[in-house]
Amino acid sequence: MEDVRLITNVSAATMIGPDGVGLVPQAGIVIRGGRIAWVGAITELPKEFQEIPAVSYDGRLATPALVDCHTHLVHGGNRAREFEMRLEGASYEEIARAGGGIVSTVSATREAGEKDLLSQGLRRVDALIAEGVATVEIKSGYGLEPETELKMLRVARRIAQERPINVKTTYLGAHASPKGIDPDTYIDTICIPTLDAAHVENLVDAVDGFCESIAFNPDQISRVFDHAKSLGLPVKLHAEQLGHLGGTALAARYGALSVDHVEYATEADARALADAGSVAVLLPGAFYTLKETQKPPIDAFRRHDVPMAVATDWNPGSSPMGSVLLAMNMCCTLFGLTPSEALAGTTLNAAHALGLEDRGVIAEGMRADLAIWDVEDMAELSYLIGANPLHSRIFAGAL
Amino acid sequence: MEDVRLITNVSAATMIGPDGVGLVPQAGIVIRGGRIAWVGAITELPKEFQEIPAVSYDGRLATPALVDCHTHLVHGGNRAREFEMRLEGASYEEIARAGGGIVSTVSATREAGEKDLLSQGLRRVDALIAEGVATVEIKSGYGLEPETELKMLRVARRIAQERPINVKTTYLGAHASPKGIDPDTYIDTICIPTLDAAHVENLVDAVDGFCESIAFNPDQISRVFDHAKSLGLPVKLHAEQLGHLGGTALAARYGALSVDHVEYATEADARALADAGSVAVLLPGAFYTLKETQKPPIDAFRRHDVPMAVATDWNPGSSPMGSVLLAMNMCCTLFGLTPSEALAGTTLNAAHALGLEDRGVIAEGMRADLAIWDVEDMAELSYLIGANPLHSRIFAGAL
Ligand SMILES: [Zn+2]
Ligand SMILES: [Zn+2]
Repeated sequence: MEDVRLITNVSAATMIGPDGVGLVPQAGIVIRGGRIAWVGAITELPKEFQEIPAVSYDGRLATPALVDCHTHLVHGGNRAREFEMRLEGASYEEIARAGGGIVSTVSATREAGEKDLLSQGLRRVDALIAEGVATVEIKSGYGLEPETELKMLRVARRIAQERPINVKTTYLGAHASPKGIDPDTYIDTICIPTLDAAHVENLVDAVDGFCESIAFNPDQISRVFDHAKSLGLPVKLHAEQLGHLGGTALAARYGALSVDHVEYATEADARALADAGSVAVLLPGAFYTLKETQKPPIDAFRRHDVPMAVATDWNPGSSPMGSVLLAMNMCCTLFGLTPSEALAGTTLNAAHALGLEDRGVIAEGMRADLAIWDVEDMAELSYLIGANPLHSRIFAGAL
Repeated sequence: MEDVRLITNVSAATMIGPDGVGLVPQAGIVIRGGRIAWVGAITELPKEFQEIPAVSYDGRLATPALVDCHTHLVHGGNRAREFEMRLEGASYEEIARAGGGIVSTVSATREAGEKDLLSQGLRRVDALIAEGVATVEIKSGYGLEPETELKMLRVARRIAQERPINVKTTYLGAHASPKGIDPDTYIDTICIPTLDAAHVENLVDAVDGFCESIAFNPDQISRVFDHAKSLGLPVKLHAEQLGHLGGTALAARYGALSVDHVEYATEADARALADAGSVAVLLPGAFYTLKETQKPPIDAFRRHDVPMAVATDWNPGSSPMGSVLLAMNMCCTLFGLTPSEALAGTTLNAAHALGLEDRGVIAEGMRADLAIWDVEDMAELSYLIGANPLHSRIFAGAL
């Protein structure tokens, strides 16, 4: 009976059940070897676990640890000065002339040493850990040439060694074309060969692209996806954020893990996502920052049972957002999600958006990644704006 | 030379200067007896301070500690279930029938024991302290009868004994009429006598009211204000949030410390505030939560040099917001404030909204309440969404 513990005196939001939350009041959770060995009403605790060491959480709420399934949190510098210039009335031209926009992050990321990138990334990850996040996705995409793309992915992998957090890496070479190179040339002669190089170093868990009129068209994206498939890598896509270009349907054809943003997705897109088993990832931070008005088609996603995830999209330009809980609140307030949907969006569905089947729910056999909250009701997690009621975080069974 | 320390290796946003920020790069700050004894470029450090113990902050940004000048953070319970019902499609009638709305907070606050109210309040205050807040205003207004109004104010005072934070109390008996009592009767027979009782116990630093068609009209508010004046207490007002009722002009006539919300304030109101020396307090949390579209007239406030403050309005109904930094970001993103204005709004101008002249700037003679931030540029404080870059907080000179 080594390495076995009972968590007691919690309400457990298992995320399994017809209401999506599957609350077990007065629950017990048995953790053994970093996994959940049993969960249920404490009155039904099996005899074999009745003598194991118990830790009481005084009636607090237990949920699966949170999953932030879409971030760009490894990057050099920040764009606070650009944020300020815009508010001081500068035009986009003036900001571009001052070196603003994604170009400035590309430069800062290319220039940053691995150690510096790591320390900046760790600071951001620490903010997520403080909120009960145990799995985070991190994208490349500010290098746009091999050396920096690989550097970003190495730093992302390194974060998982430096902190008690799981990291899933995503290659986002198809984020933008570097200055002076046309998109087709970039895709074929830089983006795809860089993917090969990153894959050889085992740096890539999934492959992503940015399918918008300001970035890449579906044909260019499909060349990247074909290559990903040939390497056996799953794909996901930034699509339908600023307009409807058909990225969602394309991604669904490739059986994408997720399609992200999706403000302009249609009913047919929702059906395609459902058929493909892809997750719709909602990113309210960018919607809020860019003052978008087109909301993602939540009702269509509901009608077609498209799983919805919620993420920070932490990036220096359109979403310098360091809080998964705030993303949940914004999804409720701005998009009309219910608190149950928001919580499923940062647990179960966020795990699925990363292709992970071993977390995001509290059930036997799952990773023992848990968050314990100083709240009485699951809805409080989405209701609070900018407050963090985390009491404690359990990572792979470690209390 | 006892009790004297030098803070060194900071950029100091003094909040004094033509640009509103008054940044001193490579600054030194001398703290003596809980006050600032000197601030300036470290190269100009007076001889008398050159041998005192120094603490280096490695180039970080120092600002005045933040001031949250408008909160209702002492209250019983929360309204997460109501938030959830609304998102699940319940009508206002259904929510009211289920006991929702301000009535539910009044009941929960009346029922809560002082100890329970205090522990809930401390949890909320701790979130603000973690963000570098050193002064917080706390209003009554969920009792609407003497016993509970005084209980709330006593709890507010108690918070300042339990935590290293200054508390300014505000009597908000004129928040709503209790069920079954008409507003005029309430004001004259309950609200005003309760103010007397609270004042006798020295529980009241200022007097506030809620001047809206759903609450009290200017005539009723003026009876409360007349009484406040007769007791020598300063006044402030919730006004022009949901419509234009003339509360701003009324408050200005009474020389109010501040008028809060002010979305529907006019150019003439801005002029009146300027003439009265009143602060316009912007509360983006409620604007965001209620999905308001009428923005406060920032340009008019700028034209007339009305000082603008920024606060959380932390309350369980329209703004369960636990972050001053997020209020700053929302004021920029939703209302168009510049990051400099947002920072002045939570330091200098927030202090003035509470009638405090001894804080909110870094200058000789001021309280040594400081915040040290892990940022390179003051604009980052407003640029980040839901992330907290506080490095350390200095309260009354205590590092
Ligand atoms: Zn993204
Ligand atoms: Zn208020």
